[in-house]
Amino acid sequence: MIIQAQRWKDGALELLDQTRLPLKTEYLRITNYRDVAQAIRKLKVRGAPAIGIAAAYGVCLGANEIAENDMAVFSEKMKIVIRELAETRPTAVNLFWALERMDNVLKENTSKSIEEIKKALLKEAHAIAAEDAEMCRKIGENGAALLKDGDVVLTHCNTGALATGGIGTALGIIYTASQQGKKISVFADETRPLLQGARLTAFELQQAKIEVTLICDDMAAFVMQRKKINAVLVGADRIARNGDTANKIGTYNLAVLAHYHNVPFYVVAPSSTVDTSIASGKEIPIEERNPEEVTHGFGVQTAPSGISVYNPAFDVTPCKLISGIITENGVYRFPYQF
Amino acid sequence: MIIQAQRWKDGALELLDQTRLPLKTEYLRITNYRDVAQAIRKLKVRGAPAIGIAAAYGVCLGANEIAENDMAVFSEKMKIVIRELAETRPTAVNLFWALERMDNVLKENTSKSIEEIKKALLKEAHAIAAEDAEMCRKIGENGAALLKDGDVVLTHCNTGALATGGIGTALGIIYTASQQGKKISVFADETRPLLQGARLTAFELQQAKIEVTLICDDMAAFVMQRKKINAVLVGADRIARNGDTANKIGTYNLAVLAHYHNVPFYVVAPSSTVDTSIASGKEIPIEERNPEEVTHGFGVQTAPSGISVYNPAFDVTPCKLISGIITENGVYRFPYQF
Repeated sequence: MIIQAQRWKDGALELLDQTRLPLKTEYLRITNYRDVAQAIRKLKVRGAPAIGIAAAYGVCLGANEIAENDMAVFSEKMKIVIRELAETRPTAVNLFWALERMDNVLKENTSKSIEEIKKALLKEAHAIAAEDAEMCRKIGENGAALLKDGDVVLTHCNTGALATGGIGTALGIIYTASQQGKKISVFADETRPLLQGARLTAFELQQAKIEVTLICDDMAAFVMQRKKINAVLVGADRIARNGDTANKIGTYNLAVLAHYHNVPFYVVAPSSTVDTSIASGKEIPIEERNPEEVTHGFGVQTAPSGISVYNPAFDVTPCKLISGIITENGVYRFPYQF
Repeated sequence: MIIQAQRWKDGALELLDQTRLPLKTEYLRITNYRDVAQAIRKLKVRGAPAIGIAAAYGVCLGANEIAENDMAVFSEKMKIVIRELAETRPTAVNLFWALERMDNVLKENTSKSIEEIKKALLKEAHAIAAEDAEMCRKIGENGAALLKDGDVVLTHCNTGALATGGIGTALGIIYTASQQGKKISVFADETRPLLQGARLTAFELQQAKIEVTLICDDMAAFVMQRKKINAVLVGADRIARNGDTANKIGTYNLAVLAHYHNVPFYVVAPSSTVDTSIASGKEIPIEERNPEEVTHGFGVQTAPSGISVYNPAFDVTPCKLISGIITENGVYRFPYQF
């Protein structure tokens, strides 16, 4: 069974708290936008598309919290809601894109009643979620065509149902190929520092009864050397116009290893991840996160106090190392033109 | 200050309890051989040379515990001491080698008094420790010649003073270059699954006031892409006749990344690590360790129950990816001939 990360139910956003996985499958019932912002900030919801969807529903919750019937007050308050949601994750392009769609609904409906606007906002959030599920389905179809029966896939971080409104991107391809009757098995990088591979990917593949083997990130080269790996599938947080791809730290590592071992390396993402405003990866800012993610893995101190830490959240894989970028529109190849 | 993992003082072995690092710097004062055996078994002392030295001093403690003046009784009891120390770590070559040297002292001195034998044993243990320190010193000299003022070194696992009777192997080079007045800074891989880089290398470099930055293993490629890395220095557990090197898992990963980024990749080890009985890395068996090292690496469970894990303790780096093998005898280059 493919897990569902979030759903709108009875006026609230039900969100699987991904920080509790894999030990506890707990859905939070969120009824105000600040808790959505907090959930995004605290990585209770993660994965670019899932963040966008959660933020869109966050806008709905923010609107529902406003009791005033004065349109000027409502508009001002909605600006605060959207700004606060936008400030949760500085690199998340889907977040800004989803919030812009919600903002456009606000702008296009100023002549309507606030009640009608709230309905239009919810309709738009549902549309964003449904479009994402449909996009995942198409990505899965496009990517599954590249996998054969018996293939072994190496993956990093979590790019599955837990990261999207549907079956996921890179993992969506694995689900789709499996559903087509191909036997696909997976090596999952644990993905330090936050262990999304161990906590999330291993969990959701296990739930879906896909054969999965967990490894530490520093074992990937040895796995490529000793085992048969047919493809590396990773997600993307932001893709530049030339195909350079920012994704979870460790992705570039795998791209170099795949290149050396002649293993096809695919980036899998919705076309909305392509940011045509930037020419190349050089323009992508790299968020550095809290050193404690490295020094205090899961509440236990594993490094000396006061140690310097470099903790970039993302890395940038040059387009030349990418065998293909799989989107809902098809598979793009170098030189990339979207 | 370069930390000292163990020292003989006033008739006792003082041993830094490495299982308490990096949170607590606690020296155990060990006065009987059974506690030495226990310390080796419980990984309070680790690193092949350090284990050998501790075991040698364990033999001295065992001898001192024997009050009898009858040579036959003394000899019988010493056999038990040596056997028990030998059974602590089944695959530790240095352990058996050090115990054999101590056993030879017993065999060569049967004509002497027990008091004289005890003195000879202590002299041999001191010699084992001093020879190891001297070997580290020479390795340090040979390797430091390859580093320039301002160089940035990337390292993996722990190959320092904590693992040897001296300044270490790969870290010994860094200490030596620093003592020569060169400013050397270090990026230390945390080294999953057992985090020797985070727990031990970061700790001992910090103690020695060497500039060190801790990273997760999957950040190494990005660090090579974005920061200036002048050399990668790693240790070795076993080197085949052709130079293929078995070392801590993750070493091969770094070798491929260094190759791609044109960063010199050096293996640093005593010449005794070369196993001339094996022609190439293909003949090196790879020990697979407990899956819980991966799934419960931080004392907490970080992966779903029942998940499959691949946990090789070592990997094998092909000789062609190694820029040089630095030993006490000098720097060897491809094609390797020892």
